Amino acid sequence: MAQTAVKVYGWAVSPFVARALLCLEEAGVDYELVPMSREAGDHIRPDFLARNPFAQVPVLEDGDLTLFESRAIARHVLRKHKPELLVADGSPEAAAMVDVWLEVEAHQHHPPTGAIMVQCILTPLLGGVRDQAVVDENVAKLKKVLAVYEARLSASRYLAGESLTLADLSHFPMTRYFMDTEYAALVEELPHVKAWWDELNARPAARKVTEHAVNAAKLWSQEKAEQQ
Amino acid sequence: MAQTAVKVYGWAVSPFVARALLCLEEAGVDYELVPMSREAGDHIRPDFLARNPFAQVPVLEDGDLTLFESRAIARHVLRKHKPELLVADGSPEAAAMVDVWLEVEAHQHHPPTGAIMVQCILTPLLGGVRDQAVVDENVAKLKKVLAVYEARLSASRYLAGESLTLADLSHFPMTRYFMDTEYAALVEELPHVKAWWDELNARPAARKVTEHAVNAAKLWSQEKAEQQ
Ligand SMILES: N[C@@H](CCC(=O)N[C@@H](CS)C(=O)NCC(=O)O)C(=O)O
Ligand SMILES: N[C@@H](CCC(=O)N[C@@H](CS)C(=O)NCC(=O)O)C(=O)O
Repeated sequence: MAQTAVKVYGWAVSPFVARALLCLEEAGVDYELVPMSREAGDHIRPDFLARNPFAQVPVLEDGDLTLFESRAIARHVLRKHKPELLVADGSPEAAAMVDVWLEVEAHQHHPPTGAIMVQCILTPLLGGVRDQAVVDENVAKLKKVLAVYEARLSASRYLAGESLTLADLSHFPMTRYFMDTEYAALVEELPHVKAWWDELNARPAARKVTEHAVNAAKLWSQEKAEQQ
Repeated sequence: MAQTAVKVYGWAVSPFVARALLCLEEAGVDYELVPMSREAGDHIRPDFLARNPFAQVPVLEDGDLTLFESRAIARHVLRKHKPELLVADGSPEAAAMVDVWLEVEAHQHHPPTGAIMVQCILTPLLGGVRDQAVVDENVAKLKKVLAVYEARLSASRYLAGESLTLADLSHFPMTRYFMDTEYAALVEELPHVKAWWDELNARPAARKVTEHAVNAAKLWSQEKAEQQ
């Protein structure tokens, strides 16, 4: 029986959507990206709310299974198609370290990088003016967080140990935007963090996901320009 | 060889510490709670920073393994001692639903309940005055989130399906505080959410963790009173 390809619903510029796509690319899974428009309110239509009642992208459909929350989608894709990226060497200890650094991504790294991205990239794009106090506060937080990363990546090659895992990959989508801000030096001045980032960013799967996002952003700018 | 008991470092009033303790209690694991004082700055001493460079509790020590981030600790304890609470019926689909609702807890439920708790309980306790605008904004968010929970818990007995899992347990520590605020009615007026909460709250493990927190809070008040 032919299996229908996995479907991802969302807009490719979203770092949350990019997390799902990155795992699918890393695992070599065939997928269809079903494009949606936030401006058109696609995420609050009844058919989408039936998929994710929290009205957010991404959603992943895999046969009868409908999943939301990008980090849960990431786990599912890897558990099914590339478990070594989720459990490292397969020991419970290694799996625990992946979990720790996945939580660190969500609760220590994402909040400041996300806030800086919103202020420095998203707000101006939507015609607003950034709040420099918010930027400064989050730059200060991120500096402390990255100092911990530098120490960690001096002691082990990757965040969860000696092999690359989802704990590393999960940092890609937001860091990619962060590196487009004038605060990229916070990463560049830390040798181990920089080497880690360069390697992540150069992965073919990461290049593919970036291409998706860049194309989506171009299309969006064109549409905006035509409307004016 | 006698195994040393698992150690948890932290203050028992913390909902993050409570998440770790709840899993240990549910799994029937012997543990030692190593008390720490935030006022005394125990979490920023070098010996603690060597355990968690992010200077937060809880930390769990299990033999040679040192873990931080409460949700990663929870996964580790259950993976090792009570895997059915992590992978439900053992199928990849069930495990994926546990992951989804764990992420929902962290990214949809925790932010508004945590904000309401901080404003309505923690701030006054520390002698401050709550910001009602923050409370109102988060009450509005939480109403929408709980409406999704009510629908979910009408369709399945627990969040991830027909059996209790970490996805449910993980909601206990913050909801316990939330139910002490004047906004408890948001839960009480939703029949399925209320029944789910009552069942969670009545579990022997939950009672035990609450006892820890109440005793710690009493001790803290006594110390504060004596200082004055
Ligand atoms: N915790 C969610 C967050 C998803 C999220 O915030 N998605 C954004 C996309 S950029 C969204 O759909 N926002 C809908 C909105 O802005 O109303 C995840 O990891 O998937
Ligand atoms: N994401 C962390 C959060 C832990 C956390 O915020 N812990 C608080 C305890 S209430 C803490 O240690 N705070 C230290 C401080 O306030 O400086 C987890 O889930 O463990």
